[in-house]
Amino acid sequence: MKWLNTQDAGFEADFQALLDDARETTSRVDAIVSGIIEDVRRRGDAALVELTARLDRWDASDAGALRITSAEIDAATASVPAEQAEALAVAARRIEAFHRAQLPRDLEMTDTEGICTGLRWNAVDAVGLYVPGGKAAYPSSVLMNALPARVAGVARIAMCVPTPDGALNPLVLAAARLAGVTEIWRLGGAQAIAALAWGTRQVQPVDRIVGPGNAYVAEAKRQAFGRVGIDSIAGPSEVVVLADGANDPRHVALDLLAQAEHDEAAQSILITDDAGFGRRVAEAVQLELSSLPRAAIAGASWDQHGAIITVADWSQAVELTNRLAPEHLQIMVDSPRQLLAQIRHAGAAFLGRFCPEALGDYVAGPNHVLPTGRTARFASGLSVFDFLKRTTWVEADAGAMAAIGGAAVTLARAEGLDAHAMSVAARMGGSDKRP
Amino acid sequence: MKWLNTQDAGFEADFQALLDDARETTSRVDAIVSGIIEDVRRRGDAALVELTARLDRWDASDAGALRITSAEIDAATASVPAEQAEALAVAARRIEAFHRAQLPRDLEMTDTEGICTGLRWNAVDAVGLYVPGGKAAYPSSVLMNALPARVAGVARIAMCVPTPDGALNPLVLAAARLAGVTEIWRLGGAQAIAALAWGTRQVQPVDRIVGPGNAYVAEAKRQAFGRVGIDSIAGPSEVVVLADGANDPRHVALDLLAQAEHDEAAQSILITDDAGFGRRVAEAVQLELSSLPRAAIAGASWDQHGAIITVADWSQAVELTNRLAPEHLQIMVDSPRQLLAQIRHAGAAFLGRFCPEALGDYVAGPNHVLPTGRTARFASGLSVFDFLKRTTWVEADAGAMAAIGGAAVTLARAEGLDAHAMSVAARMGGSDKRP
Repeated sequence: MKWLNTQDAGFEADFQALLDDARETTSRVDAIVSGIIEDVRRRGDAALVELTARLDRWDASDAGALRITSAEIDAATASVPAEQAEALAVAARRIEAFHRAQLPRDLEMTDTEGICTGLRWNAVDAVGLYVPGGKAAYPSSVLMNALPARVAGVARIAMCVPTPDGALNPLVLAAARLAGVTEIWRLGGAQAIAALAWGTRQVQPVDRIVGPGNAYVAEAKRQAFGRVGIDSIAGPSEVVVLADGANDPRHVALDLLAQAEHDEAAQSILITDDAGFGRRVAEAVQLELSSLPRAAIAGASWDQHGAIITVADWSQAVELTNRLAPEHLQIMVDSPRQLLAQIRHAGAAFLGRFCPEALGDYVAGPNHVLPTGRTARFASGLSVFDFLKRTTWVEADAGAMAAIGGAAVTLARAEGLDAHAMSVAARMGGSDKRP
Repeated sequence: MKWLNTQDAGFEADFQALLDDARETTSRVDAIVSGIIEDVRRRGDAALVELTARLDRWDASDAGALRITSAEIDAATASVPAEQAEALAVAARRIEAFHRAQLPRDLEMTDTEGICTGLRWNAVDAVGLYVPGGKAAYPSSVLMNALPARVAGVARIAMCVPTPDGALNPLVLAAARLAGVTEIWRLGGAQAIAALAWGTRQVQPVDRIVGPGNAYVAEAKRQAFGRVGIDSIAGPSEVVVLADGANDPRHVALDLLAQAEHDEAAQSILITDDAGFGRRVAEAVQLELSSLPRAAIAGASWDQHGAIITVADWSQAVELTNRLAPEHLQIMVDSPRQLLAQIRHAGAAFLGRFCPEALGDYVAGPNHVLPTGRTARFASGLSVFDFLKRTTWVEADAGAMAAIGGAAVTLARAEGLDAHAMSVAARMGGSDKRP
């Protein structure tokens, strides 16, 4: 963990190093992935069965058996403890409500020249949702990826989840049913993405693919981009906590560790105007680490990427935060909205001393799929907008053409596009009224 | 040009061939482009000066001279004929009005559990706009790319345009000034994208890059993706015209040719319920080709990629259109809105017998940067949304945590993330009121 102080001479260099700390573990898997995609495109279902047997050690009698049956989902859902089922329901209800409130309205306007223009939102027909298997299978991510698609009006949501050695996570299947997933396949890795993007006899292709995955999945999504839409490739998670000395140091320590326990490459940064408070938080972090189950991961993240920055005032904190453009931002001061109003770049903000980021990971309502690695400068979290697209339209009659057609003809001629000009000129002065 | 009829036995195969006709001319320039980017990242301005001298045959005394001066823009703007200046003004006014009407509203809601959630839109800080040089320099594209950014509230819009042998297009500079571009650089190709994405001493880096370009520019944008946001890589243009027999065949022929004259890889498709009308349109296309300045390009496009499809009824036409998901769609029937209501996938629609697509290329108002190659299934045209991003936020106090914290703790434990659970549990039952 690094200590930084804006008053120190070397601060700017240290802070720049923090900004440049990519924390990426890029592995070159392009060739392997393109080979798998080529195989699935050429041999279809047969390739899926073979790859799943070899890579996930699960033998499907045939490709049809790759699909998880409704009975299997029933059984898995029934096996979920009541307390967990209720917690899932609370999360689903709140996530759905927040995303429903985001739904945009269509636009229609008629101007003084008599031209009517508009914009209409339509849902994507079919979406593919990738869910990692094993330990990384998070039911909360199933809700966060599938519910916005369902709220947007996507008719078909096809989920792929690897089941290594046949292992199924009941809570993941329960979340998928709750979120309105319409089909689930025992498929993982690049072969799952290939099946979703290009389709096979069994797996119909989709129009857009979302969901987190390992390096093979990320590269497969890159290679499928253009053929289908994809979400952004997520990097390691991060949090910036703005906290004054009036907070409980243990609260802040736990918030920093909640981020750190995700991944050794995760990053937790505390920005405070109280150096003494910073020291108390650092002590609390060490104390909590001594008993934390995932202490090895969280400790490595905190040691390698963690930071405590002391600032002279909150305007400095706001400026540093905008440069960091963090995925998660907690604002733990008396009037958090005053600081939020000055934040231009952040994926998601959590306001108040009693509003930890982890609340947003599960039940607050806003999405937990967020832009990482400073991409909040230009990117946003997952939302209904990821599953909608726009069709703009123009309605004009002969009168409208007479009013504005001339400008179009002039510009078309200036650009040397005569057929453009003629197609407009041919309508000017004429009449579109049927005799 | 191909004739198709839904009544023919071989129709489905022929139509599938039409769908699979990628029309892409992919050239492998990855290595060249990554070399140029590496050079600009390593040597900065010196590399920009050398590459511009070598590739665009324009010698800058130093990197500062790469920036087009305000005086040069004044002179260029003053040299634009009044008629063209007025046409640009009409276009800018209408494009700005339509995009201003798109601006989304922030969201804020408080639920029964007392949790306040919201969503706030912020503009990207800095945008880079690439404009091709030479013949492909379209002033209309400058308006269509820059105005949505300005309307969204982007403070800095940096434009790069190559000036081969020093040649400047006055109308392009006039459009840039009208659209609120804040700086213009004599830079083209991959070196322009590298300068915008990574920055040099002279060129400050941007957060997002938009605008069309050749294969080198497209590949450079691909390689910069993640470092900055990029718009979608546009393919060859296309139009689908739905027209009944009551239309003037010449009008439809000119609309098909307006698309075809862009590029030999462009595609124009007429779908009609009147085979005789289709034949008259085909004849009119040949007649117009005999006098069209860009007949060589338009003729090649029509011969290789054009099609006339005869349908039994309009429901068939709607189904085929949704499968084509065209960039541009003209609906030339008596009640075009009835058909539009059934179209799920199209970039932009033009309604009525007197509303040619070319009107939308210049002055209608909606953007002319649209999804090509069937990507309208999941993608949208350029809009203010491309220059805005969202920050979601949550505000909760001790009471709210008591209400929903339990569900978060349960799910965090189920996912094996104990620090997540503890960070929530630590706030439950406590009080956030200051003593």
